[in-house]
Amino acid sequence: MVPHLTTALTGPLLELERQFLDNACDIEKWFRTQWQDHMPPFYGSTDLRNSGFKLAPVDLNLFPGGFNNLNDVFMPLCVQAAQAAIERICPDASKLLLIPENHTRNQFYLQNVAKLASILRLTGLDVRIGSLLPEIAAPTVLELANGATLTLEPLRRSGSRIGLDDFDPCAVLLNNDLSAGIPQVLKGLDEQWLIPPLHAGWHKRRKSKHAECYDRVAREFAAAIGIDPWRINPEFGVCGQINFQERTGEECLAAQVDSLLTRIRAKYKEYGVTDEPFVVVKADAGTYGMGVMTVKDASEVVGLNRRQRNKMAVVKEGLQVHEVIIQEGVHTFETVEDGVAEPVVYMMDHYVVGGFYRVHTERGRDENLNAPGMHFKPLAFDTSGTMPDAAQGPDAPPNRFYAYGVVARLALLAASVEIEETAPAEEEDAGGDALAA
Amino acid sequence: MVPHLTTALTGPLLELERQFLDNACDIEKWFRTQWQDHMPPFYGSTDLRNSGFKLAPVDLNLFPGGFNNLNDVFMPLCVQAAQAAIERICPDASKLLLIPENHTRNQFYLQNVAKLASILRLTGLDVRIGSLLPEIAAPTVLELANGATLTLEPLRRSGSRIGLDDFDPCAVLLNNDLSAGIPQVLKGLDEQWLIPPLHAGWHKRRKSKHAECYDRVAREFAAAIGIDPWRINPEFGVCGQINFQERTGEECLAAQVDSLLTRIRAKYKEYGVTDEPFVVVKADAGTYGMGVMTVKDASEVVGLNRRQRNKMAVVKEGLQVHEVIIQEGVHTFETVEDGVAEPVVYMMDHYVVGGFYRVHTERGRDENLNAPGMHFKPLAFDTSGTMPDAAQGPDAPPNRFYAYGVVARLALLAASVEIEETAPAEEEDAGGDALAA
Repeated sequence: MVPHLTTALTGPLLELERQFLDNACDIEKWFRTQWQDHMPPFYGSTDLRNSGFKLAPVDLNLFPGGFNNLNDVFMPLCVQAAQAAIERICPDASKLLLIPENHTRNQFYLQNVAKLASILRLTGLDVRIGSLLPEIAAPTVLELANGATLTLEPLRRSGSRIGLDDFDPCAVLLNNDLSAGIPQVLKGLDEQWLIPPLHAGWHKRRKSKHAECYDRVAREFAAAIGIDPWRINPEFGVCGQINFQERTGEECLAAQVDSLLTRIRAKYKEYGVTDEPFVVVKADAGTYGMGVMTVKDASEVVGLNRRQRNKMAVVKEGLQVHEVIIQEGVHTFETVEDGVAEPVVYMMDHYVVGGFYRVHTERGRDENLNAPGMHFKPLAFDTSGTMPDAAQGPDAPPNRFYAYGVVARLALLAASVEIEETAPAEEEDAGGDALAA
Repeated sequence: MVPHLTTALTGPLLELERQFLDNACDIEKWFRTQWQDHMPPFYGSTDLRNSGFKLAPVDLNLFPGGFNNLNDVFMPLCVQAAQAAIERICPDASKLLLIPENHTRNQFYLQNVAKLASILRLTGLDVRIGSLLPEIAAPTVLELANGATLTLEPLRRSGSRIGLDDFDPCAVLLNNDLSAGIPQVLKGLDEQWLIPPLHAGWHKRRKSKHAECYDRVAREFAAAIGIDPWRINPEFGVCGQINFQERTGEECLAAQVDSLLTRIRAKYKEYGVTDEPFVVVKADAGTYGMGVMTVKDASEVVGLNRRQRNKMAVVKEGLQVHEVIIQEGVHTFETVEDGVAEPVVYMMDHYVVGGFYRVHTERGRDENLNAPGMHFKPLAFDTSGTMPDAAQGPDAPPNRFYAYGVVARLALLAASVEIEETAPAEEEDAGGDALAA
């Protein structure tokens, strides 16, 4: 099933998709060359927004949840891609320790962990799940709503290795984004593969660094296939010294918002877009859709009320927000039935392995669809994103999904560059990473 | 759809499949290690025979046809695996020349070529098809029965490179098994990637060398997971000096047949199998099911009549048969509806990408299902072979197909070893390969 595009704006996106289709050969060649120079992350997911005139990633997650939302038909693709990832990163591994988030009450998240573990087991790994939760003091079997079970076990540290009782893994896969910093138990593990590397965690990662890398990747790609990079690249700005509680830094924020809105208005004019521009203010280190605000005028960020300030001041794990990114808002003009829809694309190694739509019936086209407590309806893609069909129109499902896959891989490539460029000196990487908090 | 196993013999195979399932982790780890030491062929297909007590490959094709018979649902798997193959062998390639067999009247084969070209195009290669046929003097568009079209173009040699008019490819993929020897136009191409290497062609290749490599691979694998290698490994013998027309070498053949049947009888006794043993005599360099004879007693190969001798004496492209392999026959106890069925598994790089059943309603369980003029019914697998499900029984479709995938990959690994060990010295490889005929 493919969402309907609002007809008024299908024109330009069809043009973009047509360009992707016509250049599929060069695009794949370009990616192949890029992946020779850059090591793909083990896995990732990206939220795309599709405005009809612009198709752009707005988030790239290096610790993807939501594998449970993918179409089971494409599980073999996941397994094959996971095999490639294992071969690339830790070919000798036979035992893998998976460390998830601490959300033991979130059924959807737990189903994601169970699905991820099953994919990894099918690559021939002995996979067990270690919990950072202090209350998991013995193996704990969780019965999931979908009938699966999940066994969480307490982590055991032994010298510079981590494992479980009677389980000494060669590799540790994090599905925990380290928002709260690197737990003591994960520091100094210099004998095991840590995937992704610790510095990819949200205690260190900055959305603005990713946006800067994406900007470069998108420009290079756009030049290679001859499109305006703006069509795939959201503009952004940064404010690095902000304190919402103490109301400092508002001027910087207002100035950045204003400057960004001015740039967007000029682009809208160039493309004849009549929508109202907006920007999204986000905590630079935040995740889970926390600390996010939609703004249509600079005046909106001056004199925030207490509720607004509280909402922006603190993100996941109680982290204080001092840096924000201001990102060009991309309207989502995709709808499924009566809901607004946002595609989320999943990748393992450098392969697109599936995706789903985040569908929300009570949110607008210019709102964030990944908000705390939001109950989105996942709708699995039913084509794989790797099978464009030149014989069909550019908006036919395989071709639309191909376009999604191209832009998603650009975001993944940007993440590779980001991880390379933010890698700490070797000594520090081996465990000296300081807590960000 | 999964074929029914004749109930009387499901017991032991279930046991074998159960062992594969229980050891899936070690099996995948074992393969991962092997593929670190051996370069997988670009592609391959293997014919399996499943007797209920034995599951074994009887043929490994390094120039697979039949991609048109695969389930379209698994095309993304093919594309992903083909991407991996391209990255491994010729990452810089952007243009690929595909050279097919000369069967321009075989609609099924042409559909295979069209499907293969479409898979390769989806990896981002500019693919064109060059024909060895002298009558293709200009680009020739063939309309296929399934609605696809295929353009065959005349090959153009320029110095030590081969291409088409206005098409200078980086890589050349052979879907032509070189039974007639290496055409002059393919000799001395030392500036382009030739895939597979020329010495993998049937002008040089010997089934007995493959069987010898498979024997070693199967023994190592069986030792690693603790099974009797005979359960996956057909016994074989060779006669190297035979001339069916002149009736020389019959004694060697009869002796080998007798010795093999004696060994099989002993094994049948050990496993309590009450079927009648048989062996298959095949041209050591033959293909397309030509030059094949089923034998249940040594006396059958002595004093062959003219028809039998003619059948065995000459194979594809008029090649004379002087060497034969005598291979343990494996009854096929799989049936689909009322036909006898033989699974054919397809691989690209080291990944299983699909398969189909060769179903024949007019042949017996101990007959060759791949014979000239044979009209088999292809029945695409509807599970991928990479998704065993431990929660289901060992004969559930995903688990049966997993077992197929394991044995097929063993045959592919044997082909890797075979290609390594038969590689000519560098100078010769660069074009000095002599015509075998």
